Amino acid sequence: MTLPIGFDDVVAAHERIADLVHQTPVLTSRTADERSGATMLFKAENLQRTGAFKFRGACNALRQFDDAQRQRGVIAYSSGNHAQAIALAARLLQIPATIVMPQDAPASKLAATRGYGAEVVIYDRYSQSREEIGAQLAEERGMTLIPPFDHPHIMAGQGTTALELLREVGGLDVLVVCLGGGGLLSGCATVARHLQPACRVIGVEPEAGNDVQRSLQQGRIVHIDVPRTIADGAQTKAPSERTFAVMRRRVDEVVTVSDEALVRTMRFFAGRMKMVVEPTGCLAAAAVLEGTVAARGKRVGVVISGGNVDLDRFASLLGGSEPTP
Amino acid sequence: MTLPIGFDDVVAAHERIADLVHQTPVLTSRTADERSGATMLFKAENLQRTGAFKFRGACNALRQFDDAQRQRGVIAYSSGNHAQAIALAARLLQIPATIVMPQDAPASKLAATRGYGAEVVIYDRYSQSREEIGAQLAEERGMTLIPPFDHPHIMAGQGTTALELLREVGGLDVLVVCLGGGGLLSGCATVARHLQPACRVIGVEPEAGNDVQRSLQQGRIVHIDVPRTIADGAQTKAPSERTFAVMRRRVDEVVTVSDEALVRTMRFFAGRMKMVVEPTGCLAAAAVLEGTVAARGKRVGVVISGGNVDLDRFASLLGGSEPTP
Repeated sequence: MTLPIGFDDVVAAHERIADLVHQTPVLTSRTADERSGATMLFKAENLQRTGAFKFRGACNALRQFDDAQRQRGVIAYSSGNHAQAIALAARLLQIPATIVMPQDAPASKLAATRGYGAEVVIYDRYSQSREEIGAQLAEERGMTLIPPFDHPHIMAGQGTTALELLREVGGLDVLVVCLGGGGLLSGCATVARHLQPACRVIGVEPEAGNDVQRSLQQGRIVHIDVPRTIADGAQTKAPSERTFAVMRRRVDEVVTVSDEALVRTMRFFAGRMKMVVEPTGCLAAAAVLEGTVAARGKRVGVVISGGNVDLDRFASLLGGSEPTP
Repeated sequence: MTLPIGFDDVVAAHERIADLVHQTPVLTSRTADERSGATMLFKAENLQRTGAFKFRGACNALRQFDDAQRQRGVIAYSSGNHAQAIALAARLLQIPATIVMPQDAPASKLAATRGYGAEVVIYDRYSQSREEIGAQLAEERGMTLIPPFDHPHIMAGQGTTALELLREVGGLDVLVVCLGGGGLLSGCATVARHLQPACRVIGVEPEAGNDVQRSLQQGRIVHIDVPRTIADGAQTKAPSERTFAVMRRRVDEVVTVSDEALVRTMRFFAGRMKMVVEPTGCLAAAAVLEGTVAARGKRVGVVISGGNVDLDRFASLLGGSEPTP
């Protein structure tokens, strides 16, 4: 079976979006290294435009629209970061955008999406299907639907995160990536498997939302209920056929971390690395800092996927509140 | 009169400390540019080791110790960031360190300084003179005193911040720098004046602590009471002869911002740029974002000086508490 994306797709994506995206910095922390016993290299996609890696895939997808698609516009459904990414990319490329967002998405994400000039349509995450709403609106309006992860252009675009990281830091023993629907992980795994075949590629899900871990264990896509976790960017119910196919072939392992570990890691990032990282963005780092991934003595690439969290929520988590999904 | 430092001293410092310091990223923000009407280029020294630019000067000073000085050790007094900087630099260079800190320094700074292996001596900021305590301990123990700003090696080391920035981004119309005792500003102004004579160099102090502004206006060093401001890194009572001499010759203007503006800017950094910046570190950005510095249509370099703020304090400021010094 031919997989939906290959290394060349990621390289092409990188060239296609280079003038739109930030090449985000790779950061290090003596304290992180002391805690993990590893050499940790953090790819800071929280410092990406729109505050998350999602902007990469959005640019890669919209840059490939033909004239008719550009004119009728793009529609997207998203718990947040994909929405902002599509909204800003569409604005920069002068394409109309409609975004379908859950009613419990962080207020900052709703506001940012509207701020980029997109029309926002709200749905109830627990009773309605965003896929159906998106498909219906796409048909009614003639817009092109760009899903948050189940699209080769999205997957290839997200993979540019790992391409930049590996080109900058050279050899890695392990690459650890935050995991929701698998767009980022499948893209990054495609890069690592090609450039550094010996590098272990590990995805990290929230404990309550281990749909990909279970899917890989059972060798077929497993559907779960909407997981209750503070990692709102990883509340996926299942990977897609495309992301699952790539992850199955190119990812070595998927592990999980608790919401409490995410909060501790969020505090670590704020206190020690002076960065705001959203709970979902802490997944990969938490797995290394808390020893879930064996990292001692190794060079470990860690993707920080995003930094979009309401400041009130962020403040209350920093201040010691219990993490309630 | 020969000034205490020249451009060549900063270049030499840069080579001397390159293996110890982070070359911090230069970040941009579409939202910041929209608010200011300028092209803002943020030099993120909050992402420097020990969380502030102070590490640069500390490394430059300690790397120039002779064998006898190395053996007897270093003593420093500081409201915080200089303390951590000297402590880590001393540890990396295997030099014993004693740090004199005020009893109201943020707990995170006290803990970090001790964590780097330095001995901490506490004093009362409002009744005791840290200069006297430092001098006395230096004499008793035979240690070399490295003050937080009044030293050519410190000033030259801090100037490497601007050297990296100007080399990376090219031409600037304005360079805006956070200002306490003037170590950072005098070093950065020395670089800008040499590399880009037409670039305006502006220092930013807290309203309550405008000792340098008044000193420049009156043409002589003006002493003020310990200012009550949330910018704890800028609670200086006066510039030193050395920093004043350099600033008088090479700085175009000093402006001030309110504590409220610092809190708004701190929220902006957290919410939009996903970074933790301490109140003092917000001084330069606040002056541009709030229009105190005329920046519309210009390329403006902005130094973010540090990110060391207790997480509880940070959380309460983000959450909307009034700023109380």
